Amino acid sequence: MMYDANNIFAKILRGEIPSHKVYEDPEVLVIMDAMPQSPGHTLIIPKAPSRNLLDADPEMLARLAPLLQKIMRAVKEAFTADGVTLVQFNEPASGQTVFHLHFHVIPRIEGTPLKPHTGAMEDSEVLAANAEKVRKVLAA
Amino acid sequence: MMYDANNIFAKILRGEIPSHKVYEDPEVLVIMDAMPQSPGHTLIIPKAPSRNLLDADPEMLARLAPLLQKIMRAVKEAFTADGVTLVQFNEPASGQTVFHLHFHVIPRIEGTPLKPHTGAMEDSEVLAANAEKVRKVLAA
Repeated sequence: MMYDANNIFAKILRGEIPSHKVYEDPEVLVIMDAMPQSPGHTLIIPKAPSRNLLDADPEMLARLAPLLQKIMRAVKEAFTADGVTLVQFNEPASGQTVFHLHFHVIPRIEGTPLKPHTGAMEDSEVLAANAEKVRKVLAA
Repeated sequence: MMYDANNIFAKILRGEIPSHKVYEDPEVLVIMDAMPQSPGHTLIIPKAPSRNLLDADPEMLARLAPLLQKIMRAVKEAFTADGVTLVQFNEPASGQTVFHLHFHVIPRIEGTPLKPHTGAMEDSEVLAANAEKVRKVLAA
């Protein structure tokens, strides 16, 4: 499968589409999911172009793993969540809708079901406030 | 949260409960999920005791990441799947039922919905045959 540089995350990485940024370094961008399955749903997007995890650089994945844990811990704390789910989809059959590698970090509250994967767009003000919550925990 | 060494994966790692082994090295055991959400549902279980990803050693996670990709690719190929989903649950609110870190690698076939997370036990002969399919791809 080919990588298509016109996907929405490639556009976000190029700054052509705005996003609510939580963290950035030379290899990774972390933003709020604009269609959250729960409040605080966060996306970890490696910058290198790969369609999904299957064609990613394994050495990049190794460098990414500790950051992934750090973000998961911060998201759980920022939203005082009872749990957190990590999901990563590969190819349409698995539920992938944007064809640039990304990891979903979804805070879970006991007894609160998830919203559908591609549901309603969240208000920009809510996303901005949620991004700030995670940034605060990361900065603490 | 404390780690309880009486969880079922700890017992599998100690050899007290049988499993259908796909791969093993000093740090990791890979087995077939006994209650698969789809044929070929595979579990990646780091051997070091941690309750879930949140309390895992970040350096172990870095070493694990390339193997995780390798197993995902092999599972997709072994079951001629259209896609593959990676899921990792942390705490009961997120769906975690066994409190030893594990990653779910779930092959997906276009149009075939997943079975529930804790559904029926699969026949041992089926699991043995499926483990052999993945081992063959890994050995190729």
